[in-house]
Amino acid sequence: MGKSIPIHIDRRTNVPLYSQIAQALTEYIQSGRLAPGEKLPAIRSLARALQVNTVTVVKAYQELERAGLAVSRAGSGTYVAPRDQASAFLSATEPELDLLDRGQVEIPPGAINFASATPDPDLLPVATVQRLINRVIERDGGQVFAYEESRGYLPLREKVAEVLAAIGIHTEPTSIQVLSGGQQGIDVVAKSLLKPGDVVLVEAPTYPGALAAFRSRGARIVSVPLGEDGPDLLALKEILKRSKPCFFYLMPAFQNPTGAVYSRQKKEELLNLAAHFGLTLLEDDYLSELSFADVDLTPLAALAPPEVPVLYLKSFSKVFLPGFRLAFLAVPPLLRREILAAKHTSDIFTSGLFQRVFDLFLREGIWEEQLARIRSLYAERYHTMVQALQKELPAQVTFIPPRGGLNFWLRLPGNLDAALLYREALRAGVVISPGALFLPTPGPSSYFRLTYASLGPEEIRRGAALLGNACRRVLGERCPGEYTPLV
Amino acid sequence: MGKSIPIHIDRRTNVPLYSQIAQALTEYIQSGRLAPGEKLPAIRSLARALQVNTVTVVKAYQELERAGLAVSRAGSGTYVAPRDQASAFLSATEPELDLLDRGQVEIPPGAINFASATPDPDLLPVATVQRLINRVIERDGGQVFAYEESRGYLPLREKVAEVLAAIGIHTEPTSIQVLSGGQQGIDVVAKSLLKPGDVVLVEAPTYPGALAAFRSRGARIVSVPLGEDGPDLLALKEILKRSKPCFFYLMPAFQNPTGAVYSRQKKEELLNLAAHFGLTLLEDDYLSELSFADVDLTPLAALAPPEVPVLYLKSFSKVFLPGFRLAFLAVPPLLRREILAAKHTSDIFTSGLFQRVFDLFLREGIWEEQLARIRSLYAERYHTMVQALQKELPAQVTFIPPRGGLNFWLRLPGNLDAALLYREALRAGVVISPGALFLPTPGPSSYFRLTYASLGPEEIRRGAALLGNACRRVLGERCPGEYTPLV
Repeated sequence: MGKSIPIHIDRRTNVPLYSQIAQALTEYIQSGRLAPGEKLPAIRSLARALQVNTVTVVKAYQELERAGLAVSRAGSGTYVAPRDQASAFLSATEPELDLLDRGQVEIPPGAINFASATPDPDLLPVATVQRLINRVIERDGGQVFAYEESRGYLPLREKVAEVLAAIGIHTEPTSIQVLSGGQQGIDVVAKSLLKPGDVVLVEAPTYPGALAAFRSRGARIVSVPLGEDGPDLLALKEILKRSKPCFFYLMPAFQNPTGAVYSRQKKEELLNLAAHFGLTLLEDDYLSELSFADVDLTPLAALAPPEVPVLYLKSFSKVFLPGFRLAFLAVPPLLRREILAAKHTSDIFTSGLFQRVFDLFLREGIWEEQLARIRSLYAERYHTMVQALQKELPAQVTFIPPRGGLNFWLRLPGNLDAALLYREALRAGVVISPGALFLPTPGPSSYFRLTYASLGPEEIRRGAALLGNACRRVLGERCPGEYTPLV
Repeated sequence: MGKSIPIHIDRRTNVPLYSQIAQALTEYIQSGRLAPGEKLPAIRSLARALQVNTVTVVKAYQELERAGLAVSRAGSGTYVAPRDQASAFLSATEPELDLLDRGQVEIPPGAINFASATPDPDLLPVATVQRLINRVIERDGGQVFAYEESRGYLPLREKVAEVLAAIGIHTEPTSIQVLSGGQQGIDVVAKSLLKPGDVVLVEAPTYPGALAAFRSRGARIVSVPLGEDGPDLLALKEILKRSKPCFFYLMPAFQNPTGAVYSRQKKEELLNLAAHFGLTLLEDDYLSELSFADVDLTPLAALAPPEVPVLYLKSFSKVFLPGFRLAFLAVPPLLRREILAAKHTSDIFTSGLFQRVFDLFLREGIWEEQLARIRSLYAERYHTMVQALQKELPAQVTFIPPRGGLNFWLRLPGNLDAALLYREALRAGVVISPGALFLPTPGPSSYFRLTYASLGPEEIRRGAALLGNACRRVLGERCPGEYTPLV
């Protein structure tokens, strides 16, 4: 190990030496100073350096292994556990990557963050929410802070069933399960339906939070390549012929990360296949409200024949009120009981305050008002984004402007790994999400995702210019001013 | 099948007939009209009665089996799935029982509910909370409804670390994980540490929500008998000699359901055993504030030697503000990363509003005020409970008054199944929790739990009188007035 990783040992405390060493190494691993796959110091040399017994170092390394942070390879030594470690449970998720996706990685101060889906807090309808919170508390008193039904606050479930009926999804309040946000929806479905070794289908690329939830159940994740207008149905058919997946997780409207929208034809063909093979669908509608074009977003749940079970997961509040932690699942009757049990096991119930406030949001048309406001606000940013990217990025970096949503999905030419661009951009003060984040199986990707949720028009323009320069550096261009696209 | 279960079929819709039949039967099973273990109609006779093809009924029954609601037995027919069905994943939890535990089963109107841990909404400090909510919103603006760190709001974590230090648990803010309630704490630990087939130790009896979370991971649950002053350590030692449990889930302060408090000596011996066998502990401190006697409640986490990893789970708000959905986990450094990842996979983050309000609760001493108020209020109910039970119940029904908490654990004489009393009491308008709810392995129990969280003194007295009569009926006594205890 070339680099210096000083370990301070305190012999006066009653914390055992091996535990002190393990803790110090844990910090190095978690902070990234010791990288995945990196070799740890040889046991003898570390023992010598720290003036401890070799057994002490062995015990420290065993602790790290037990925590899934290190792996030992016979005859070779001990290594920091790789990110994609096969230990499907202990290292099921990839927290650093997930956190990056949520904008919670350490970002240099002043950086322009195209990786964060966190909406600008100033855009949230704070005064309106405050008013409704006070109204609900005055109306319902202590009930607001007491236990709530595990399935959800009944008036809200009734209203949500009505709202869904308006987009063609006919269900009833008993079939609506309230959840503490979209991620919990995915997790609860995984808990209800997946057991170790089960096959679950995902689009490739897809949302990393879903991958983490499926891995946490020990499921076998099989991916279906995603085209511009939906999944590759020939590939899907081949998979269905040789395996019996538990369900297919998909985002037909402004897919994350690609922004793709399934065409009506694809949806119909997909549903025919699902009917034929008895496939259950988990449809994640996380942002279909944010449409900037005339596009058919009819959900699969509205088109599905009765023999195709569709679990329709709707987050209304993703970019509008993320702190509300609210989502809704329309559940086929046969699965209601299991979904309710999984919700109960997860957190018993969802905050009654937010359910009651959101109920008023829907009932009093405030939701529609907010939506109109947010849509026009994001439309400006969206158009700024399209123009800035077209102006600033080298022509070799290609993308199709999405027709809605918050994500742009871009591709570097050739097989250039977007992780290179990620690092180059970070040095220039711009954060992007490298495509590898969204791959069901780890590997390099020449794609990257840009999200404009947290950025104003001026930041978008400045960020695009900086990113354009970073792209040129990665592409080997020296002089941005003189850049000529290679056709 | 003797009873009448009319199934209405609509031949005009496009819902397939088998699906209509399956849905109708699902309703009957979920409502309890078809009981666990009950035989479903023979395929031919049902097909004849409904004038459908036998294949249609076969398909309907297959749907029920797929949903874990029915099982077919070769040569015998199809039965409603038993509650304790071995299918560890699909039917992992027992929702009806869990829901009963949460007071969400259908209770006859006007019934006195000794099964509900829901505090009386009128006792919650609504005005104070409303004031703090407004203060926080005015102070922090949109940030309150935006994304929050997955680990939790930093000032709150700092304050919680301080509060824990005052009870002898020395940790740091990075080691505090904020959770959306105690159940999520258990679920997140299960997700981080348990994989299928792993052994997890529990007290017997124990909290059913924990059993559900452990079953959902496919863990092997092994129980350690619980005495008045803590777990049976000889039994524990034998278990540790022959297996390597992932962790031991325990509630040393006013255990649920028994109300037991571990003695200091038991705690120390337990920690010695844990150190010797390398056992990790999950200590659930869900209600130690509610003490009505001078009793040593020093947590295991404060006594543990550094080599015993203790995950200390603290819900502050269980009976005070359940709607806040807040709990805290003090995590040993080596497990931090996995716990954070599991939290992130579960619901990304916990509501920032409630975290910020609870932070002010702690910082401004409001918490201590509320606690004093709640303690004196519940003390009155507690003493009413002790007196009423001693007065009204036959002497053969025995219990040791707990020294705190909200639960009384009572025993019927002989091997009388408390499920009999549950039904008899329900007829009399009183709801109790039969002991079978709390058993790690299904079976009858002569114990039952009474919780007085939701009842005022008058209701407690009336409920105890009704329950006393129900006990006498179950014990075979005819004439309550003339009841003489059999010694």
